Amino acid sequence: MTGLSITALEGIPEVYPGYDLAALIGDAASASPEGVRDGDIFVVTSKIVSKAEGRQVTADDREAAITRETVRLVASRPHPGGITRIVQHRLGLVLAAAGVDNSNTPDGTILLLPEDPDASARRLCLALRARFGAEVGVILSDTLGRPWREGQTDVAIGAAGLHVLLDYRGTADAHGNVLAVSAAAVADELAGAADLVKGKATGRPVALVRGQGHLVLTDLEAGGPAVTARHLVRPAENDMFRLGTDEAYSRGFAAGRASAADGGNSSVDGPHEAPSPESSESARTS
Amino acid sequence: MTGLSITALEGIPEVYPGYDLAALIGDAASASPEGVRDGDIFVVTSKIVSKAEGRQVTADDREAAITRETVRLVASRPHPGGITRIVQHRLGLVLAAAGVDNSNTPDGTILLLPEDPDASARRLCLALRARFGAEVGVILSDTLGRPWREGQTDVAIGAAGLHVLLDYRGTADAHGNVLAVSAAAVADELAGAADLVKGKATGRPVALVRGQGHLVLTDLEAGGPAVTARHLVRPAENDMFRLGTDEAYSRGFAAGRASAADGGNSSVDGPHEAPSPESSESARTS
Repeated sequence: MTGLSITALEGIPEVYPGYDLAALIGDAASASPEGVRDGDIFVVTSKIVSKAEGRQVTADDREAAITRETVRLVASRPHPGGITRIVQHRLGLVLAAAGVDNSNTPDGTILLLPEDPDASARRLCLALRARFGAEVGVILSDTLGRPWREGQTDVAIGAAGLHVLLDYRGTADAHGNVLAVSAAAVADELAGAADLVKGKATGRPVALVRGQGHLVLTDLEAGGPAVTARHLVRPAENDMFRLGTDEAYSRGFAAGRASAADGGNSSVDGPHEAPSPESSESARTS
Repeated sequence: MTGLSITALEGIPEVYPGYDLAALIGDAASASPEGVRDGDIFVVTSKIVSKAEGRQVTADDREAAITRETVRLVASRPHPGGITRIVQHRLGLVLAAAGVDNSNTPDGTILLLPEDPDASARRLCLALRARFGAEVGVILSDTLGRPWREGQTDVAIGAAGLHVLLDYRGTADAHGNVLAVSAAAVADELAGAADLVKGKATGRPVALVRGQGHLVLTDLEAGGPAVTARHLVRPAENDMFRLGTDEAYSRGFAAGRASAADGGNSSVDGPHEAPSPESSESARTS
């Protein structure tokens, strides 16, 4: 495997609720000079999946919509005109504003993430496999910020028909050393690569990756250790950055004061559990 | 720009200190059927740059080497056989073990990151531009973990000759909405994409990306708003996750106890600055 190519599909129209996305993507792929082959991977901007699934809500409800999509407040920071909330989404993803998006939507509406992106990817994958008689994979991508680094990258929020993590544990290098890397997040790397050709606001929401067939599953039912985007989400309890720095400090401060009032009998044991947004307020104001 | 291709260069030998990397990469590119054209981007695994630059140290010094490369401890966690340290590297990068690597190195040695990856990328870029008479870009990549998501991805730790961030601020979409995305971290997306064809432990440490010439600078001296990998590093003071959750909580706890002892006159204002491990104690006791 020494090369890959990525092509943005042309001719996918603006998507509205109820549209048959598999048909639209299939038609665009059929019309492309590349066609569709075993091992091809479709990377689909999740926004058009949200649109087809009718995930629009009115923009007036934006803050309420974010709250509804949120299971846990991770961090927040005021900005001119409001508060940025980094939250854990009901899908497990940690992201700003719960992925609620007001770009590329008709005026007065905002878009939620798909209800179940792995299920949407699976439906698309099955339909495209049936149409083309080819073993293909599907990734739904979204654009996320990240700690420590400027700019956003596209990552996989839904996946079907391919391995999302390539496990190197136990693999030896040319010198016989076991590799320190545990697993390459290949579905995220594919989503980011596809973003380079899809771009933003270009009217090209789908890209076809060719040359990574070793990642694609022959049998969708067979599954594997990591074959949905859900497998790319680290559980909060295993995450060293499950709370923002200010939020963790504030909770510690409150606990420290309570401990002092308690005669110092309680100890620093840290916020090992991931409390809900509701319980965080009480933790802060003791 | 509707497509790109990525090819791993063949025939790059094991690299030893003092090797002329520009010559090795240039020879491999000359021998490839693709050749080299204006707009091509070379993605080079930083490990071979470290090797050419003689950044090996003996493995016995691993913990000391990590400490020397570190400017700030961000988080730490015990694991079987030691402690994982997430640190801010002297280059600004936040990463595990300060990027000190013991895979793909001869037995008994470990590798530090290049002394100045942006400068290394620039030297490579100038040499390759001179050899081929083509406007090319160079990215040095390394494999990093990230919060919230499983697996690692390759990112750009050095860059020359190309824009590393593609700024969308102020761009309107098809509906006239200004895009919420501020900037795409295209150099990171390119590094991740190249990892898909380079792989690990494959003896193919360099990939050539074709089809992203809009990112490549005509004039290396002209510069731009974000043309080195340093521009991809978010300053700690702007980062909502500049400390691990447990570390921030512990500091808050100590500050809360001190505040109680102080009669409650101090307030929760959080660790707004990014204290060094040494100064953290004083920061706690406002």
